[in-house]
Amino acid sequence: MISQLIKKIQEKNAPVVVGLDPMLDYIPKHIMDSAYEQFEETLGAAGEAIWQYNQAIIDEIYDLIPAVKPQIAMYEQYGLPGMVVFDKTVKYCKQKGLIVIGDIKRGDIGSTSTAYANGHIGSVMLGRTELRAFYEDMVTVNPYLGSDGVKPFVDVCREKDRGMFVLVKTSNPSSGEFQDQLVDGRPLYELVAEKVNEWGSDCMDGNYSNVGAVVGATYPEMGAKLRKLMPYSYILVPGYGAQGGTSEMLRPYFNDDGLGAIVNSSRGIICAYKQEKYLEFGEQNFALASRQAVIDMIEDINSIF
Amino acid sequence: MISQLIKKIQEKNAPVVVGLDPMLDYIPKHIMDSAYEQFEETLGAAGEAIWQYNQAIIDEIYDLIPAVKPQIAMYEQYGLPGMVVFDKTVKYCKQKGLIVIGDIKRGDIGSTSTAYANGHIGSVMLGRTELRAFYEDMVTVNPYLGSDGVKPFVDVCREKDRGMFVLVKTSNPSSGEFQDQLVDGRPLYELVAEKVNEWGSDCMDGNYSNVGAVVGATYPEMGAKLRKLMPYSYILVPGYGAQGGTSEMLRPYFNDDGLGAIVNSSRGIICAYKQEKYLEFGEQNFALASRQAVIDMIEDINSIF
Repeated sequence: MISQLIKKIQEKNAPVVVGLDPMLDYIPKHIMDSAYEQFEETLGAAGEAIWQYNQAIIDEIYDLIPAVKPQIAMYEQYGLPGMVVFDKTVKYCKQKGLIVIGDIKRGDIGSTSTAYANGHIGSVMLGRTELRAFYEDMVTVNPYLGSDGVKPFVDVCREKDRGMFVLVKTSNPSSGEFQDQLVDGRPLYELVAEKVNEWGSDCMDGNYSNVGAVVGATYPEMGAKLRKLMPYSYILVPGYGAQGGTSEMLRPYFNDDGLGAIVNSSRGIICAYKQEKYLEFGEQNFALASRQAVIDMIEDINSIF
Repeated sequence: MISQLIKKIQEKNAPVVVGLDPMLDYIPKHIMDSAYEQFEETLGAAGEAIWQYNQAIIDEIYDLIPAVKPQIAMYEQYGLPGMVVFDKTVKYCKQKGLIVIGDIKRGDIGSTSTAYANGHIGSVMLGRTELRAFYEDMVTVNPYLGSDGVKPFVDVCREKDRGMFVLVKTSNPSSGEFQDQLVDGRPLYELVAEKVNEWGSDCMDGNYSNVGAVVGATYPEMGAKLRKLMPYSYILVPGYGAQGGTSEMLRPYFNDDGLGAIVNSSRGIICAYKQEKYLEFGEQNFALASRQAVIDMIEDINSIF
């Protein structure tokens, strides 16, 4: 799977992933109004509004980027109608040729992690029929429960050629509270990184492994260190743009081959029309503002090479 | 919320929660056959079979216990039909007067954790209408992202009188890989426990806090230590029965008032009919076997006092 992602990154010349993390207050008024008219103030209205919003943005940006990363929480919070739209969004993006990274951050004990892995990137058996439940190509995984919680995802990645990114060092302000604690003089996230290397060695796909890592853009020195610790792992880098990461901070996340990292922006792209810089597009043309924001982001990221 | 749970534990004299973690190979053949007949080999058949199975068990055990703990992964793995049954199961248990602990182990950065918290134990706003998405009373939370990932759940617990259990020390074999790492001579899980105490102090409901902790039954010495470190937190204890924990190992998890812990069993109850001990019930009477297993478990747990 990682070789497919790399191929698309090279074709589009864009080590960039767009986070489809819709919040209702990002969505233009005309879409919200129409959803409320059709469904009143129900969870179904949220689902419809998010779907219209996502679809318009995907249609305008799919040709520019290799991948999208829907954040499942933004759908799950609207219950079943939200989950329906998560599923629809994943399928729609795949039809458009995009690789879909489900930002699910799941992780549990063995048999339960197996269920999550099968459900999101693998398949389940119903009698003699093998079926997919959700349709992501790759997912994010929380490592706090240790190897037996992570390995079921690794197994599915190996068997089905799918991908995963293990949370190593997240981009949020209090990520250091546990992740940075020193164990024998080294931060915990380095121990996690070594495990990522170990898990990933068993799951190579070309020069890189299907087991990658999440390392926030907001910590470039840690990024440099982690880059060396996990030479074969792709790094998914959140925190660019809205969370404060800039392109100069991103160089250390890449290997010398110009590969090895993919940078995420969510709000900076999908809610671009509200930024000063893109106000000229107007609320009606929100998706065109997103397109311009993607073009600008790709140029900015590529400027570091 | 924790005061309501304690009240029910005392009424039923049962510091016990049943994990509704259905696997298809737990489900009796007559239920699977009927689901396949109706829905063929589809995800819908999985949903229907799980629903019939859950409902029969709940009907036989709801009067004996204070709470249930559905493991969302076991539903999520069957996609949308699975999520429909998760929702139906939660609502059905609440109608039966049970407190529902959603075993969701979610955790993310701030705004995303807010979405999970609102979706599972809080509410979302659609225009001027406040709605629930999923209907759990309490949830489990993964702390790896630190305070700003956990606090949105704490806020909802305080504002809406709901409850949560933070993963401190899990019951699986490799839980020690990160959780037991020594930080200044103390295991990481103790740091997490101190944070649980801090988060929970802001969220008291009677003598206990709405912020509890998950500590596996398989580590009684750690249980004793953690009991003292978090005097106001209820401890949700997985790992009894099928995972190897015995009642003698459980005493340290309780305070001297006989409160402070609630012990989970999943497979040991819902799949009791397959155990040697309960074979006499037969597959058709699987739910009666579950009832007997609950009675036996309550007696076993209460024997430690």
